[in-house]
Amino acid sequence: MLIVMDHEATSQQVEGVCDAVRRLGLTPKPMPGAERTAIGIVGNDGPIDPARFHGLPGVREAVSISAPYKQVSREWHARDSVIALPNGTRIGGDHVVVMGGPCSVESEAQLMATAEVVARSGATVLRGGAFKPRTSPYAFQGLGHEGLRLLAKARDRFGLAIVTEALDVANLDAVAEAADIVQVGARNMQNYALLKQLGRIGKPVLLKRGMAATVKEWLLAAEYIIAKGNPEVILCARGIRGFDSATRNVLDVGSIALVKQLSHLPVIADPSHATGVRELVVPTARAAVAAGADGVIVETHPKPCEALSDGQQALFPAQFGEMVDQLGVIAAAIGRSMHPSQARSAA
Amino acid sequence: MLIVMDHEATSQQVEGVCDAVRRLGLTPKPMPGAERTAIGIVGNDGPIDPARFHGLPGVREAVSISAPYKQVSREWHARDSVIALPNGTRIGGDHVVVMGGPCSVESEAQLMATAEVVARSGATVLRGGAFKPRTSPYAFQGLGHEGLRLLAKARDRFGLAIVTEALDVANLDAVAEAADIVQVGARNMQNYALLKQLGRIGKPVLLKRGMAATVKEWLLAAEYIIAKGNPEVILCARGIRGFDSATRNVLDVGSIALVKQLSHLPVIADPSHATGVRELVVPTARAAVAAGADGVIVETHPKPCEALSDGQQALFPAQFGEMVDQLGVIAAAIGRSMHPSQARSAA
Amino acid sequence: MLIVMDHEATSQQVEGVCDAVRRLGLTPKPMPGAERTAIGIVGNDGPIDPARFHGLPGVREAVSISAPYKQVSREWHARDSVIALPNGTRIGGDHVVVMGGPCSVESEAQLMATAEVVARSGATVLRGGAFKPRTSPYAFQGLGHEGLRLLAKARDRFGLAIVTEALDVANLDAVAEAADIVQVGARNMQNYALLKQLGRIGKPVLLKRGMAATVKEWLLAAEYIIAKGNPEVILCARGIRGFDSATRNVLDVGSIALVKQLSHLPVIADPSHATGVRELVVPTARAAVAAGADGVIVETHPKPCEALSDGQQALFPAQFGEMVDQLGVIAAAIGRSMHPSQARSAA
Amino acid sequence: MLIVMDHEATSQQVEGVCDAVRRLGLTPKPMPGAERTAIGIVGNDGPIDPARFHGLPGVREAVSISAPYKQVSREWHARDSVIALPNGTRIGGDHVVVMGGPCSVESEAQLMATAEVVARSGATVLRGGAFKPRTSPYAFQGLGHEGLRLLAKARDRFGLAIVTEALDVANLDAVAEAADIVQVGARNMQNYALLKQLGRIGKPVLLKRGMAATVKEWLLAAEYIIAKGNPEVILCARGIRGFDSATRNVLDVGSIALVKQLSHLPVIADPSHATGVRELVVPTARAAVAAGADGVIVETHPKPCEALSDGQQALFPAQFGEMVDQLGVIAAAIGRSMHPSQARSAA
Repeated sequence: MLIVMDHEATSQQVEGVCDAVRRLGLTPKPMPGAERTAIGIVGNDGPIDPARFHGLPGVREAVSISAPYKQVSREWHARDSVIALPNGTRIGGDHVVVMGGPCSVESEAQLMATAEVVARSGATVLRGGAFKPRTSPYAFQGLGHEGLRLLAKARDRFGLAIVTEALDVANLDAVAEAADIVQVGARNMQNYALLKQLGRIGKPVLLKRGMAATVKEWLLAAEYIIAKGNPEVILCARGIRGFDSATRNVLDVGSIALVKQLSHLPVIADPSHATGVRELVVPTARAAVAAGADGVIVETHPKPCEALSDGQQALFPAQFGEMVDQLGVIAAAIGRSMHPSQARSAA
Repeated sequence: MLIVMDHEATSQQVEGVCDAVRRLGLTPKPMPGAERTAIGIVGNDGPIDPARFHGLPGVREAVSISAPYKQVSREWHARDSVIALPNGTRIGGDHVVVMGGPCSVESEAQLMATAEVVARSGATVLRGGAFKPRTSPYAFQGLGHEGLRLLAKARDRFGLAIVTEALDVANLDAVAEAADIVQVGARNMQNYALLKQLGRIGKPVLLKRGMAATVKEWLLAAEYIIAKGNPEVILCARGIRGFDSATRNVLDVGSIALVKQLSHLPVIADPSHATGVRELVVPTARAAVAAGADGVIVETHPKPCEALSDGQQALFPAQFGEMVDQLGVIAAAIGRSMHPSQARSAA
Repeated sequence: MLIVMDHEATSQQVEGVCDAVRRLGLTPKPMPGAERTAIGIVGNDGPIDPARFHGLPGVREAVSISAPYKQVSREWHARDSVIALPNGTRIGGDHVVVMGGPCSVESEAQLMATAEVVARSGATVLRGGAFKPRTSPYAFQGLGHEGLRLLAKARDRFGLAIVTEALDVANLDAVAEAADIVQVGARNMQNYALLKQLGRIGKPVLLKRGMAATVKEWLLAAEYIIAKGNPEVILCARGIRGFDSATRNVLDVGSIALVKQLSHLPVIADPSHATGVRELVVPTARAAVAAGADGVIVETHPKPCEALSDGQQALFPAQFGEMVDQLGVIAAAIGRSMHPSQARSAA
Repeated sequence: MLIVMDHEATSQQVEGVCDAVRRLGLTPKPMPGAERTAIGIVGNDGPIDPARFHGLPGVREAVSISAPYKQVSREWHARDSVIALPNGTRIGGDHVVVMGGPCSVESEAQLMATAEVVARSGATVLRGGAFKPRTSPYAFQGLGHEGLRLLAKARDRFGLAIVTEALDVANLDAVAEAADIVQVGARNMQNYALLKQLGRIGKPVLLKRGMAATVKEWLLAAEYIIAKGNPEVILCARGIRGFDSATRNVLDVGSIALVKQLSHLPVIADPSHATGVRELVVPTARAAVAAGADGVIVETHPKPCEALSDGQQALFPAQFGEMVDQLGVIAAAIGRSMHPSQARSAA
């Protein structure tokens, strides 16, 4: 913590701040400058609320120095975390992982057709929403528990791992039982009740970045889950809100590279929701892997034009396969490789 | 719905789109232009998913025309909704309402001291968080049920109505029982599980705009609550995320005026969270009322420098009283008046 | 300047940074903490480039403390600057000033009709673009020098002061000769060649905030003009770019209140460009004055539907008059008053 | 153009709009719907200002359909534009181009050392600012004409092409004479006086996207230059302003892929300014190429810690070389290749 005084602050005001610091059991360290005095604080272990100093006479600003998170930080845990799934997929190591599937589980036929495409292409994780967060109360809300049952069936048939979203605490247990990875949507990134429960489920969590969340807030949301007992968090960049409606959101590739430096957690990207436009999905998926992402999660649908949700961003099956091939070459270009497909070897 | 074709689209492609429209039971209306053809759709009652057309050959764009919400819209409900509270406060009519209180309920002494300031100033609603959403898992999380008990006690003593936040479905019933208005925080604006339950509680809901939510998404969130059976929604502008860290958020006063035109629901503003800086709270509160807001919700604390949360934005008690007086003059300037204080008349 | 070290930085690395500080002729002040060491710098008069320290071993971050501007700052110049125009209008004191007129000067008939509306309503400054910045190369670009001639004629006839935009250095002299205030558009806020020339013209400058400019960048742009010799700068908030296309831009009223605190310069608001929608102009104009703005600049047109540019945001003449009356009441509510109209007394 | 009526609009109001359309010489095409009527306009060649209809009774909205640009659009010019430089570099074809050099030209020694690094690595274009746009009037403003002279000298010695920025019309001729590509900075993207002059210089232009410019505005700025006679425009994505100060700007890789679809012009990326942090430059450069960019422009400096501007984002010479190698592999992965180095073959 550094407290910056007004340039006209009196020495009594400086001393007043120093006293306030001492009352918290800490040591003030005044630094008189040509224009103004600043006061450093020595000896604090945890974060101090800057508000404690804002109201004191002569104070201009109070600046925090420490990062507010610990357990997610690479500063305290230098090695990459690697998360292992039951089907052998490992997320966060040398390999690049591809997760694919429909926006929503719509029917058994649709899901099995998609799962086959996903498995055949070499991807190892199947995505699909059973409970759907929809902006409009009148839009299709998902098949619910029946959707979970179908996902489990697809897993058994194709050897894929399953990632699907939990919308709230009430359906969390059902989702956690059915899924190999529990997804938290962007709109729920700061649903703290949900984050706390996720600390107790014993399954990996895919935590999407909120549309207007800073990297610090995103890492703090991960810290919530870890602080409650679950270290298996996968971060997912899904696009931030921008000012241009030409694309749905903005894929912030710089944040992918930044988070890989700040944290030991794996980071994947969701180019489907980041762009919202089919033609932009493959180029941005490649960009994410080139920037260092540990994988991507991409929507595909056997018949995008008939999809009940988000059809305009779903890849056609053939596009999905080509994307996996391209990502493999990009991964190799930066010294990584595609995840060896469990599904393929099983076939 | 309007479907815009590529300028090189063939007449067969135009006919193909027309067929697709007819298959949905609707009537296509092609409009050939100098550069390209557009196809209008006649006869649709509800919204059609543009994705149904995006993939068809020759289609450039599909544009929705209808607003996706109904029950919140002034187009279908011209008169202002007015929401009545047990202590006589009416929100949304000619009067301007002031809600005040601490960020968090910290202790009985703190809450009663603040409630007295709020009541004495002429405000009629007491705010105070019992369950607190905090960005960091290590920050003070609120007193919980004990906080609710203290709020009820303050209500009885000072004749104020109570507004406090429900964080999730699990604590919703307890909050709804204690509160006169249940608050939904900005981070929960799209927590659909919570929104649906709010449709069933029989208490007014204060719905904060999400930090990156568009006006349309905000109104759709209100539509969720109303569609599930609760018409008493109060919208609350609390600042949107901006690019400048000089203030915590940006108070979008244009959106206040816009929402008053688009919707019949009452709209209030939260200048404390919008700015995050004590010195900016009063000017922006005045601006919100001048723009047409039906009230404000403002943080005040007997000793801001000792507050356990958000102390840097809490008004000193004397400032709070002055603000209420200034808002009264502004309200009169635009043909409204401050809400007649129940608390004062009770005193 | 404060240099924050990695938590694993060695004492040699700390000493290395201290040496680098000393080589710049300054004094380092190390502050060892529980987690990491920070190093304050004592004795610097001007800003130091943080980049000088970013590359040194063990350095995590370098944080500037001083504000980078001086002459615009209220810290060094406590009293409000007041700018006097030839027609007696004073900007920045106790009065609130209204500037009005068309987006573009289109013809003598149109300009004189508008000027009459403006003068009759009690406003004292006439706006009107002779040189127009247009997003499209195919849009109407203004009447140019003929527009300046018409503005001068309107000034003589109605006793108004004139504000009009200079687009670049080439037409600056002509504009400065014709205008009482030279306007710099949002897209030119960081056109440094223009800013430097504005320092030499001997006329007040109306400096619009860039659509994505921070408050600091806006004040630094004003500092450019003042540093080159022209202290008469009027800041103008015209809306920042937001993520919601429901309004053209976002009127950041918090920034108006903030700039009044940080700087002694007058600040006015442009609600026409901030919202882009006629129905939102008057409420946001009221909001700006309520937040402490020293005035507003508003578009009005005798026949908005026939305007050659921006007709959808121009007030009808009757609306303009009503707005001036409402602003007078708001101004009085906060202890100010409308500027006494020179035009009226002349009539 | 599509005009959407209020749901309560009368048939007279609909007819009134139709008359207004006919008065413009165009044909209205009303489409009555279940909720409201919309009116299409047939036969317009150029864009119509929506404001012409906004004020008419019963009108809710007027929506433009045509893109406002023509000459930059791939719809009218399907093949990629390729821009050839005197040293043999071709921008926009199958090859990926690397431009490198210091932020500012500081001295002959610094520039020659950097140019050697650039040439040796295989890059073919040297960047370097002679005239510098600086946010603060007190920062280093560049060497000016002496800087141009040094750039010309470096070109002769190393066989590189030169790209450098023109700040305004006054120094444009000098810059255009010295440079092989004239750069327009992000803050000048809508400096229309400059854009018009750039149409007349007969040298390629590197047009950076403004920090808050939409893709449409960016393409319209390019349209200005082309409309005035210069078809050789290279678009440059340099990062848009975001809400998170963790990085300087946000590299919008989706926009790179989008612009490649909308326009035939070459697009390159500037990862140095997009991120502002050395450690993020290489990953985001890779991402840009993976997304389809035709090249990158990257800052490098022999001694970044002593740079007079932007040292914290300059690559060390060894990093620059490694980056070029990595980009070559990424380019190959998507069927392209690095530009064959003229400099190398000359050596």
